[in-house]
Amino acid sequence: MHILTRPILEINLNHVLDNYNLLKSLAPKAIAAAVVKDDAYGLGAELVAAKLYQEANCRAFFVAHATEGALLRPLAPEAKIFVLQGIGEDSRELFVKHGLIPVISAPEMLEYWEKHPIKGVQPVIHIETGLNRLGFRETELAKLSPAQRKQFCMVMSHLACADASEHFMNQHQLQNFIRLKGQYFPDIPGSLSASDGVFLGADFQQDLVRLGAAMYGINTAPYRQNQMKNVVKVTAPVLQIADLPVGEFVGYSATYRANSPRKIAIVSIGYGDGIPRALSNVGKVFFKTDKIHEARIIGRISMDNVICDITDVPGVHVGDLAILIDDFYTIDDIARDSGTISYEIISNLGKNPRFVRQIIGA
Amino acid sequence: MHILTRPILEINLNHVLDNYNLLKSLAPKAIAAAVVKDDAYGLGAELVAAKLYQEANCRAFFVAHATEGALLRPLAPEAKIFVLQGIGEDSRELFVKHGLIPVISAPEMLEYWEKHPIKGVQPVIHIETGLNRLGFRETELAKLSPAQRKQFCMVMSHLACADASEHFMNQHQLQNFIRLKGQYFPDIPGSLSASDGVFLGADFQQDLVRLGAAMYGINTAPYRQNQMKNVVKVTAPVLQIADLPVGEFVGYSATYRANSPRKIAIVSIGYGDGIPRALSNVGKVFFKTDKIHEARIIGRISMDNVICDITDVPGVHVGDLAILIDDFYTIDDIARDSGTISYEIISNLGKNPRFVRQIIGA
Repeated sequence: MHILTRPILEINLNHVLDNYNLLKSLAPKAIAAAVVKDDAYGLGAELVAAKLYQEANCRAFFVAHATEGALLRPLAPEAKIFVLQGIGEDSRELFVKHGLIPVISAPEMLEYWEKHPIKGVQPVIHIETGLNRLGFRETELAKLSPAQRKQFCMVMSHLACADASEHFMNQHQLQNFIRLKGQYFPDIPGSLSASDGVFLGADFQQDLVRLGAAMYGINTAPYRQNQMKNVVKVTAPVLQIADLPVGEFVGYSATYRANSPRKIAIVSIGYGDGIPRALSNVGKVFFKTDKIHEARIIGRISMDNVICDITDVPGVHVGDLAILIDDFYTIDDIARDSGTISYEIISNLGKNPRFVRQIIGA
Repeated sequence: MHILTRPILEINLNHVLDNYNLLKSLAPKAIAAAVVKDDAYGLGAELVAAKLYQEANCRAFFVAHATEGALLRPLAPEAKIFVLQGIGEDSRELFVKHGLIPVISAPEMLEYWEKHPIKGVQPVIHIETGLNRLGFRETELAKLSPAQRKQFCMVMSHLACADASEHFMNQHQLQNFIRLKGQYFPDIPGSLSASDGVFLGADFQQDLVRLGAAMYGINTAPYRQNQMKNVVKVTAPVLQIADLPVGEFVGYSATYRANSPRKIAIVSIGYGDGIPRALSNVGKVFFKTDKIHEARIIGRISMDNVICDITDVPGVHVGDLAILIDDFYTIDDIARDSGTISYEIISNLGKNPRFVRQIIGA
């Protein structure tokens, strides 16, 4: 018997690399940029960027904030690093110091840029095609002078519904993009798609694709089987096993009551580690012997512990590792069971330093 | 006009200190220990511990994992640091190196401890009184020899329903605790309550209270007005303002449609910063002029952006700060609106390094 206390997060960089290469092969005419914002969706931007820079010759990265770009620069000295949230007074210094490229999405930010340009840097312009998030609207594009339009190195937009291949918004946004690019930016490269858009075909891939979620194993084309390799595994040790007599309650606010004698295991992981509290009384963990056994989560998930029902799971001992995420129960599965999307799961998951981190392929 | 891009997290350590002192005054006979697990619920364990150690003479801290205790030791050289998840092969070294005190909650862990004791360290024993999470069950206590029982420095348990003052579980657990302590550990100090238990009166306070949530401003006695000071404020700059014509959709999966002409603001914060995605189409942000204006969140929250409806909010400009959390809309409010508890909100909130962190009272 082993006595263990810490949850374990395994990140497989070889699978990130394989996913990147597969996605790249699906968009052979486009530059394959890697999206590593939000610390590579929580999985470790520096690890992911170094891997792709060294082993896949990736030379274009997207981050959300300049602070994130600054961390990448030492690992990717010759890469283009694009900053999606753009540039402002609170970040300009980092652009200068680390040679970052701002994505400019509004006239006010462009005005700021034109007053405080950075020598040798051509920004990206973000145009709005239907998501109604960031980007120049057509009325704003019409006000730009020819000289203003010439200062950009690329034009980009972003799809709203690319994870639904037949959604009318996809064609709507593509036509808007083609029309606006043709009218205002005919001579520079265009970028429309993130990884979900790659699966929509060559029209959507344009000159550069921004590979994020699918690279991390998320099925961004949920209308068909996932082609990506799973990148994330999470396990945590059983701290204790106990019999639960009839009538006993479990966890905060006593939301579970034993109506028959149960056997429970207390597992050393909780919402403080990014396991969504929404899985209380509905989620499941797994134990692997000769086969995979399912144990229902009972009671409320607490900050540091999950309690599960192992009445029908044979041979569980203190110190055994309960499985929270694995190839057979991926981030897509845990997201579905907790009523959110995979992106939110991993972006909360990777952040707690008390995980034992096991990096494969670093 | 200011052009800004980064979200801002303000943490008021003076308010943490005030809350600690108020809670301490409510339990005058008990030692007031500070719970700083999970990086002080995401707000910064090192900052909080240093503040309480230096300015409130706090000499007892609780963490979940030894890794967390290790970070505290340099800041609190003479404090007792208790580790709730206990000790195991994956953490013993840290206990030795940093003089941490394990909380032992199961016979298997006790067996490990007795085989690998640490000289000069007396562990805490955790006993189960009704939460059915960690702790020795009565049948397990009965098997301990008198010598085994004598090795502990304290006996602790944890309440399931202390945030509901009239809940039958409170008396049930108190009576169990008194009975088991009297029978097995009559001569050592006892600890039963976290901050919610403090409000249940002297019986529940025993010899040591473990102050966590309420210290961070959470109302752990929601059956009455919050007596705690708010510790957390979150703001984020408006990156863009746009008119939204009738028929336009907003955000991923086009879940919002404008049925009348709207005006929207795109705010530079998202679930990647810990703002729960569950607030999509239901949450709100605020703008402060001479008074406080409310702007409904529309469409899905994305990793880096929140979109809100400012049609009826006068005078919002690019660069203005939208308010996500403040004294008038606290972590309790945002938790309620997103269908979870305040603890989960702050434990996800504090972790993203792209926040500008403003620490008051450091």
